[in-house]
Amino acid sequence: MMLARHGATPAKGVNRQALSPEEIAARRELIELARPLGLKAFSDAAGNFFLRLEGSDPDAAPVLTGSHLDSQPTGGKFDGVYGVLAGLEAVQAIRESGCTPKRPIEIVAWMNEEGSRFAPGMMGSAAFAGAAPLSEMLPIRDAGGISVEEALSEMAKAFPSVPQRDLGRAVAAYVEAHIEQGPVLEQQGFSVGVVTGIQGKRTWRITVNGEEAHAGTSQRRDRKDALLAATAMIQGLAKSFHDEEDVVKFTVGRLEVKPNAPSVVAGQAVFSIDLRHPDEATLRALGDQVAGICGANAAPCSVKVEELVSAMPLEFPASMREEIRAAAARVGLRSMDLPSAAGHDARYLHGVCPSGMIFVPCKGGISHNEAESATADDLYDGARVLAETLLALADA
Amino acid sequence: MMLARHGATPAKGVNRQALSPEEIAARRELIELARPLGLKAFSDAAGNFFLRLEGSDPDAAPVLTGSHLDSQPTGGKFDGVYGVLAGLEAVQAIRESGCTPKRPIEIVAWMNEEGSRFAPGMMGSAAFAGAAPLSEMLPIRDAGGISVEEALSEMAKAFPSVPQRDLGRAVAAYVEAHIEQGPVLEQQGFSVGVVTGIQGKRTWRITVNGEEAHAGTSQRRDRKDALLAATAMIQGLAKSFHDEEDVVKFTVGRLEVKPNAPSVVAGQAVFSIDLRHPDEATLRALGDQVAGICGANAAPCSVKVEELVSAMPLEFPASMREEIRAAAARVGLRSMDLPSAAGHDARYLHGVCPSGMIFVPCKGGISHNEAESATADDLYDGARVLAETLLALADA
Repeated sequence: MMLARHGATPAKGVNRQALSPEEIAARRELIELARPLGLKAFSDAAGNFFLRLEGSDPDAAPVLTGSHLDSQPTGGKFDGVYGVLAGLEAVQAIRESGCTPKRPIEIVAWMNEEGSRFAPGMMGSAAFAGAAPLSEMLPIRDAGGISVEEALSEMAKAFPSVPQRDLGRAVAAYVEAHIEQGPVLEQQGFSVGVVTGIQGKRTWRITVNGEEAHAGTSQRRDRKDALLAATAMIQGLAKSFHDEEDVVKFTVGRLEVKPNAPSVVAGQAVFSIDLRHPDEATLRALGDQVAGICGANAAPCSVKVEELVSAMPLEFPASMREEIRAAAARVGLRSMDLPSAAGHDARYLHGVCPSGMIFVPCKGGISHNEAESATADDLYDGARVLAETLLALADA
Repeated sequence: MMLARHGATPAKGVNRQALSPEEIAARRELIELARPLGLKAFSDAAGNFFLRLEGSDPDAAPVLTGSHLDSQPTGGKFDGVYGVLAGLEAVQAIRESGCTPKRPIEIVAWMNEEGSRFAPGMMGSAAFAGAAPLSEMLPIRDAGGISVEEALSEMAKAFPSVPQRDLGRAVAAYVEAHIEQGPVLEQQGFSVGVVTGIQGKRTWRITVNGEEAHAGTSQRRDRKDALLAATAMIQGLAKSFHDEEDVVKFTVGRLEVKPNAPSVVAGQAVFSIDLRHPDEATLRALGDQVAGICGANAAPCSVKVEELVSAMPLEFPASMREEIRAAAARVGLRSMDLPSAAGHDARYLHGVCPSGMIFVPCKGGISHNEAESATADDLYDGARVLAETLLALADA
């Protein structure tokens, strides 16, 4: 609730964009919260933010935990933030228990997970994991024309006394706590879920080029209406990707029209496609239809199809799932296994070190929405399991 | 070409919004051009701008001619501006011929014809004609939050020495010269067209309300995707309004999505409908289907249908068409009759005084487009016919 003040919206949600003044304020508050615990703050060239609890062996590779502080434009109070704060609570509990784990434990807030200010998302964890070069992210600009490079420099200026470490350090393990963003845990009556893996995701930018014309005078047969063609493509895609089992996740969330004037036939329409599926073969097969369906509905306009993200489904290691399951059992909590339908920074850490995730329920499965909510009891349970898991991993 | 410098775009078009600094600069230039002709500038409370040539009977109701100086965001150099400059040329020719017509002749630039900065369009002529009260226009705001009232006050401040006259003065006749914005004159080989009337136009704002949700986690069966519903409505409308004869003009030129983020199911989509037809019964029948088609495609979202403009087809008086036809014949030009597919300020003047329009060809019929073009010869012919027509009307 404290962090939700930074970027609070009238509808009680949060708009805290990556590297914004609101995220700077949130990081400042985290530093204050971490001070009594003796944690050291630092960052890296990709704008990731860390709070480190020293281990008895300071040279040992650290155990990482965390998530992100940025939100969707009309986001909620829990998506991302919970993972960072659960990490802080867990570290506080470990400190107060009198234990000093062998390995350092670092709480991390990854830069730009949501991909809302700068696309695509998960920039910080991708750069950290070496999955994408930072140099390709730096020139990307937000809607106001500010580049990632400029925003990173603003963030660094806001914290002159926070040192920067190298990207791509050795990490022993990564555990991310997060709200489920789906209805399963709530419906099944579990406060804690052991995440088995992350469904695959492919995204595209579709650019439809038509020709501007006068709405009152141009004949239909002479028109190249980019918006009309885009709506035909979107309807065509929705029909082709319709599955009775309701496993395919197909979303067009963004559409921009030019010049976007009521009495001008649209000269250009640009839209996003977000396609997700837990099965790799199905995700590949469906995604490979995108260009064809768009092309078939383009006439008399032309269409450019650009794939932005192709992240295949992944499964977290059995050893990490067992660590989390055992930690839940030690604190007397029932847990259930479930896959993650949403993408998370753990996707990229999975390529670097043994990784896993802990889910807690959120009300009605609602997320990316100002009404997003979760109970204090469930959040507490998740943090307890996280603390147990971190301690076990840091002593291994 | 001189006026096209004010709001010039890199693609050689014009972006000169109503009451903007660019329109102020254009009016300033008009005053300079009118000074050697001895014309008096004045305005009115609706921000319409007039240049008056005094008649031998200064108390006689004036003959009006003109059009508008504002443009679409990616508009051309001729739409509107031509009617104002042809009026100035015509008055100059009348002056140089040594005639002093009985009635005053006033050249007018109507405020906000395009409806691009402030919706709906034709505000100035509607207020002048009493077709809509100015008081209802004043609170309307542009995308930046500036109201018509504030913009009018900026315009007035820019011209402290230009007096304001009352709205709704008596007018003897109105003639508007304009590019055709369609291909007919060019295809038929005429430099001058006598406009028979204006096709009817109905416009709507459609608001689709859904529910924001996470693109990766929310099930299709639980979603209320406002953009998906909007695209179904637009496709449904396009299919229902398809006529083999290609007379119906159906356009969705504007669509705004909220929150417009790639990984968030759209919570709201708002789009415009522009529907035009020369036959009143057909326009009424088609337009009356809009709410039903939107409603039928709304589920599981809800939809609000607001009609903004309902302007039925009109026919200019036979006497005015004959005036223009005879004027063309007097200067040795062939003319053809044709309807106007676009709306013009003459629509509102038609309710106030005998009104008519003169069309000249534009290249390829292209308008509301930066590539809009017309030949000097055709523009000259139109101005000659306008001068002859104005002189005849002002001496009547």
